[in-house]
Formats: sequence, C-alpha cells, structure tokens
Amino acid sequence: MSIEPTNDLRITAVKVLDIRFPTSDELDGSDAVHVDPDYSSAYVILETDGAHQGHGLTFTIGRGTEIVCAACRSLSQGLVGRSMSDIVTNFLEFHRSLTNDSQARWIGPEKGVIHLATAAIVNAVWDLWGKIENKPVWQLVCELEPRQILELTELRYVSDVLSHDRALNILEQQAPHREKRIAELRRDGYPAYTTSAGWLGYSDEKIRELCLQGIEEGWNHFKIKVGQDIEDDRRRCRIVRETIGPDRHLMTDANQRWEVGEAIEWMKQLVEFKPLWIEEPTSPDDILGHKAVADALRPLGIGVATGEMCQNRIIFKQLMAADAMDFCQYDSCRLASVNEILAVMLMAAELNVRCCPHAGGVGLCQYVNHLVMIDYVCIAGTHEGRVAEYVSHLHEHFADPWRQKAGAYLLPEASGYGITMKPDSLHRYAHPHGSVWVERAAK
Amino acid sequence: MSIEPTNDLRITAVKVLDIRFPTSDELDGSDAVHVDPDYSSAYVILETDGAHQGHGLTFTIGRGTEIVCAACRSLSQGLVGRSMSDIVTNFLEFHRSLTNDSQARWIGPEKGVIHLATAAIVNAVWDLWGKIENKPVWQLVCELEPRQILELTELRYVSDVLSHDRALNILEQQAPHREKRIAELRRDGYPAYTTSAGWLGYSDEKIRELCLQGIEEGWNHFKIKVGQDIEDDRRRCRIVRETIGPDRHLMTDANQRWEVGEAIEWMKQLVEFKPLWIEEPTSPDDILGHKAVADALRPLGIGVATGEMCQNRIIFKQLMAADAMDFCQYDSCRLASVNEILAVMLMAAELNVRCCPHAGGVGLCQYVNHLVMIDYVCIAGTHEGRVAEYVSHLHEHFADPWRQKAGAYLLPEASGYGITMKPDSLHRYAHPHGSVWVERAAK
Repeated sequence: MSIEPTNDLRITAVKVLDIRFPTSDELDGSDAVHVDPDYSSAYVILETDGAHQGHGLTFTIGRGTEIVCAACRSLSQGLVGRSMSDIVTNFLEFHRSLTNDSQARWIGPEKGVIHLATAAIVNAVWDLWGKIENKPVWQLVCELEPRQILELTELRYVSDVLSHDRALNILEQQAPHREKRIAELRRDGYPAYTTSAGWLGYSDEKIRELCLQGIEEGWNHFKIKVGQDIEDDRRRCRIVRETIGPDRHLMTDANQRWEVGEAIEWMKQLVEFKPLWIEEPTSPDDILGHKAVADALRPLGIGVATGEMCQNRIIFKQLMAADAMDFCQYDSCRLASVNEILAVMLMAAELNVRCCPHAGGVGLCQYVNHLVMIDYVCIAGTHEGRVAEYVSHLHEHFADPWRQKAGAYLLPEASGYGITMKPDSLHRYAHPHGSVWVERAAK
Repeated sequence: MSIEPTNDLRITAVKVLDIRFPTSDELDGSDAVHVDPDYSSAYVILETDGAHQGHGLTFTIGRGTEIVCAACRSLSQGLVGRSMSDIVTNFLEFHRSLTNDSQARWIGPEKGVIHLATAAIVNAVWDLWGKIENKPVWQLVCELEPRQILELTELRYVSDVLSHDRALNILEQQAPHREKRIAELRRDGYPAYTTSAGWLGYSDEKIRELCLQGIEEGWNHFKIKVGQDIEDDRRRCRIVRETIGPDRHLMTDANQRWEVGEAIEWMKQLVEFKPLWIEEPTSPDDILGHKAVADALRPLGIGVATGEMCQNRIIFKQLMAADAMDFCQYDSCRLASVNEILAVMLMAAELNVRCCPHAGGVGLCQYVNHLVMIDYVCIAGTHEGRVAEYVSHLHEHFADPWRQKAGAYLLPEASGYGITMKPDSLHRYAHPHGSVWVERAAK
C-alpha cells in the first residue's frame, strides 16, 4: 500500500472530544442491563497539513466516556508528525504500536478502554486514508489485492484457527467476483434489520405502532429486548409476532442479563414465538457458557447471537471454533477498526458463521455500512441468512448519513469512513461544556 | 457484617496518585513482551472524618497509568459522604455499583482499565475496614462466618460451575480447621517462590549468582522468562537446572509470546530441563488455546499456568472448567479485590485447581501475603503443590513490608491490607511532578 507523494498528508494535531446525547430522556436504547443510556462517543479528529481531516469515534453510553477520551489522548501521542504514507505502508506495524505498546498493554491487552480508544484512533486513520484517495473506505479495501488486505489484517493469536495461507486462499477465491457484487450492492443494498421497535422502556402501543411502521417501510426482521420479567417478555413477544405475522423474523436480545442455566430456562418459555436468535444471553466473556446455551436452544430452533461486547478477535475465534455462536455481531468500535474486523470476517467465512454486525448507537450504522459491503464483496461472498443491524437514531448529526431503503443499507458513495459529524453537533453536545449540557445543568 | 457505630468512619475525599518507579533502567521485570517496564501504580487514598485512611492500589507498568488514574477518579465519585458501615453492610451491592454501573459498564464490563481501577478502590475499602477493626485483612475474613463470606463474594456469571450452596458447603467444611491452620501459618508461613533470578534482561552470570543466592536463602522454586530465542532459552534453562539441581523446581514463563501451535513446539524443546509449568504460553484471553497447550504438554510433565492477565472470574471459570489450567495465578489488582478473588479461590477448590497467585510488581506481594492465608485457612485447606510468587523489588517503599523466611511468606500482623506506602515514596515517585521524574526529565 502506498500514497502518492503529492497526496500525502502529515498529522499535525490530534483533537479528542467527549460527545454525549441525552437519549436516556426518552429511554431510546434502554435494555435489561443498560437502563438509561446517554448515547455518546469519544471522538477523534486528526488534523493535517493539507485539505483533509481524519474523523473517527468509538461508541459509548455516557459515564466513562471521559476515561476513553483520556485513553485516546494517551495512545495518540506518537501520531503528531507522522505522515499518512508512512502509516499505511506499514499499517499493521502502526496498529501494533497502539495495541501492543510494551507498557500500556498491561492495562488491556486489546480489551476494554484502551481497545475502544484504539478503535477511535484507527477509525480516524482509515477515514483520512479514504479521503486522501477520494474513495469510501469499503471501496478502498475492495480495490486492494488479497495479499495487500492480509498485510494489514491482524491475525496474531488466531493462527490455530486461521492460517495466513488459508486466509489468503479465501480472499483469492472471492476476488474474481468483486465487480459483479459491487454492482449488485449498488442496485439492491445489503440486508438490514431494525431494533428501533423493541427497547425495554417502550409501551406496548409504541411497540405495535413501530412494528406496523416497520412493515410498511419494508423491514422483515424485528428485534426486541427481553430479560427483565418473563411475563412482560411473553406479552411483548406475542404483540410483535401477532403484528409482524408468521413469516417475518423476530429476534430477542437479553443484553447479558442471565446466568447460563437461567438463559436456557427463560428462552424455553419464549419458543412458541419462534425467535430467530437470542442475543447476549449471558456474560460476553463466557465462551463455554454460550456453547451450553447454543447446545440447548439450537434443537428448539433458536440460534445464539453475540458480539457487540466481545472484546477482541481472540474471543470471536473461540466462540466460532467451539460452535458457540450462530450469528457474529462484531462491533465496529469495540474491535480495533478494519484491521481486526477483517480477521473476524475471515474466521467467520472459514468456520461458516454468519456475520450480522452490531449497529445503532452513535455512528455504528455509518461504519457497518462500509463493513458489510467489504464482507460481501471480498470475504463471505454471500449475504444469505445475514442481516446487519439498523437503528435510525441520531443520523441527523452526520455530514453524510447512511442511506437505506426497504430493509437494506445502500452503498456509501462519499469518500472516507462516513463518520464526520456536523460542526454544530460537535459543538452543542460536547460534554460537559456544550450548550445542550450547560442548559440541562442549569435546570 | 457491621461496624460498631463508635468506630464508623465517613469518606470525606478520594485522592488518586500516579506513582511510577523507573525500573526499566535495570531491566528488572523485563520479559519477552514487556521489555522495559517501569513498575507503577494507580494509588487511591480514601480520606475520612476519623483517625484512619484507606490505601489501595492497582499495579501497572508505566505508560497507561494515567488512564487508570482517570478511571479511579471517575468511578470513585460516589464515595465521598458514604459511611464505611453503609458500604460493608451491603458490600456486594457497593461492589456492583462500581462493576455494573448502567453506563460505565459499556467500556468494560469487568475488564481492563475500569476493572483495574475498581480493584484499586475496593482494595482501599478493604484496607480501611481492616484498620477500623484493627485487624489485618486476612484475619478480618477468617473471622467471618461462611455465610457472611458468601454475602460479599461475587458469584455472578459463575453459578453454572459453582452454585451458592456448593460454595457455602466448601466454606463450612473448612471452618472447623481455621484456628489450627492459623497457628501453623504463624509458625511456618505459606510456601513462596522467587522470580527474581530469571528476568530476560539479566546476564547468564547474574542468573547463576541469583540462583545460588536463592538456594542459600532456602528457596526451592525458581522461575525464568522464556520466549524470545529458543537457543537462549535452552542455555538459560540449562544454567538454572544445573545450578539448582534435579530436586528443586524450575518454572518457565513466556508472557503471552506465542501462537498456540508455537507454544507447544517451543516447550517440547525445553522438556529435558523438566519445567514444572509453562506460564502464559499465549493470549490470556484464549481459553481453548490454553486447553490445547495443556493437552499437549501435560503428558510430557509440563503443567500450564496462567492468570496474571486474566481479566475476571468468568475467564477463570472457563479455564478451570475446561481443564485448561493446572496453576491459577490470579492477580490481586486485576481482579476486583477480595470480593472477586474469593469466587476464584472457591472455584479452584471446587475444581481442584492449585492457586499460585501472581505477585511482584508494586505491592502485589503485600496483597498476596493476605490472600494465600485466606485461601489456606478458609477455602483450599491445603497448600500442597501450591506456591505463591515472591519478588523482592520495591518493598522498601511500604510502611509495613511483607516478611518472608526460607521460601515462605509470614503471616501479616499489621492492621489493614498492608499497602500503605511511605509518604516520602509517594511524594518522590509521583509522575510526572515528583522529584525523581523531574530530575530525570532535566537530564
């Protein structure tokens, strides 16, 4: 990989912003564990000596965003003065300078706060690279040779499940079909599902209304939150199933609410509503627990989905190798950007697991909109049985918001990684000194 | 649990200090992955309206300590104004208010930076409780009823392997033997091993000298770092084995250097030196990888040890349940203090795994000195085949440094959790404004 010397940019400063939206007011995004989320982001801007800036973020839900911002500041100290050409020519080496710093790795490694911060920074690097090349990030990747894609993919600690040669083989097998698939995506988009209907804080009437509205708009998959009260869950599942009919899909999401045995017993009481999957039945760290749940529920027609809080590719490797997961819901900000997500997509292709990435929050749809295209074009080669999450929250704050139609994400056309937020939003929602938060504090 | 009203204290302020020692100068603590550690700590002081302060820390190795400090400040905001009686009466509820905050859990949960910060805070609470009761923390726990111990033990997400009833049963079975065991410990101490000999940066001569010195002092277990170069490792293992003779134990530690297959192949080349264990052969997140290594090496007489970077009890649960670990090296600061460590000790007792806790660093020996006593007296009931890590670094900075003799930790007698650092050390090594760091920057 290289950047034309005439296009190259040098990073001159790194700005880190704490941006929070007071979504807990309306219980948008509420679930059995995260009862009052204020959708937020640690937002990184790479300033340069040229015409472009790189924008990247990691998604958070309120308190704690300041800690991720502190980590973004610490980890990005070495970036000022570096040229983008230097970074992308040795992208994996750059990536490891963040994930594997000989001192900072102690407070991870590759998990939690420092991995979220790494994602924000590396997402900004990808955005800047895309803007320099005047291409959306999905296109940037889809125009790389298989060998070049592997040069920037983090396969460390997963070689026992996916060797370098096998990964290359997957990419090479799919390469001849890239152009045709891009044309298909430009026409039809990539299948998506909506979570807007089923937040735990919503009333029965609101759920019914949102389902009807979703059907009218052309959605075929509907997800609701479960896990706080079994009678509530049965009532809400019945409402959704009655409203969407027998042929559309209902998914359920427990957001880590249960012990392993509890998850199995609870979901047996929801079998009659035919959920496609149970998402996050228990701790996201519990590979063998998910395996037990999957073994118990698969015969009843319920799959296991997890991933939005799975910390890195090493956890995904095990979930896949143990056959503990039917749907892989990697998160575009919890994993350390495209470089690590490519490894997860490749393992999923190798082990025949369906990637249905997590989205919603702040900006996750923007990222997923690129990632599913890369997966379809270069790696999985199919989207059968796959469906990317879609939530319409907060898209109004982005300069180039994702576009969708009838249950599908459309191919992004703007250059970069699509996350650039409007200056007015960055200004007003900055925490705690933006006008939105100052006004709330005054009340 | 309760505190006499006349003894109760209210927390009036929380101080957070970034304390770093420039240990990288001498390559003390160097290994194949952490090549230049500056042993450090995020240090928490709970100030009160009475005679005592609570001191707690989490161990770090330099860069990144400022991020953990930021997390300590964020997570401890709710502490000011709370009474210790209120906290310890509902200790588990207090613990979960830190580990399971509905917003902050997103950037964990229970792992990495925020879990390390939780450990520092809760360690300080235990210290303060001990000082209020005028007892060392080990004694405080050993005088609780089995039922009371369980009331403050975090068993969430591990009930599939260890039920509440089974945990109670373990504690009750051991209860009648407590007094006799405390007398034994007071006489003989708890078996320990030294890692002081085998840091990767040390010369062959220094290793030989340190081994001879260790033998003279009465140590029977010697650990060295491996994983950077197989020929170096063979030479260093030969030196140690020749020096310590056939009957003392040699342990090896790779600090996550290898892929799974590589770990197996590498260690096969060290079999002739009869290592008792290989520690951290690969990523600490890789339960199934450790299982593969254990299955391959156990028949050759080499056990698998891991834990110092295992993020929480849920990872330990799986390592134990999958028979992927022979020696459980939990870390007193990476797990969220005594409340979570008790769960790990109980699972180890249930599944017959030997706990050999990680120590060294800054203050870990101080903590381990209490924890192994609790394990022996209340839970495991034996120390056969178990040995706690011991490194003599930096003990001079503590007000009540641990005491050892001939390969054993002695029972701590000072009240609290033993971590209080000397005011002069806190002052001089504060980063970046303490005199030690200011002088270095001036050079």
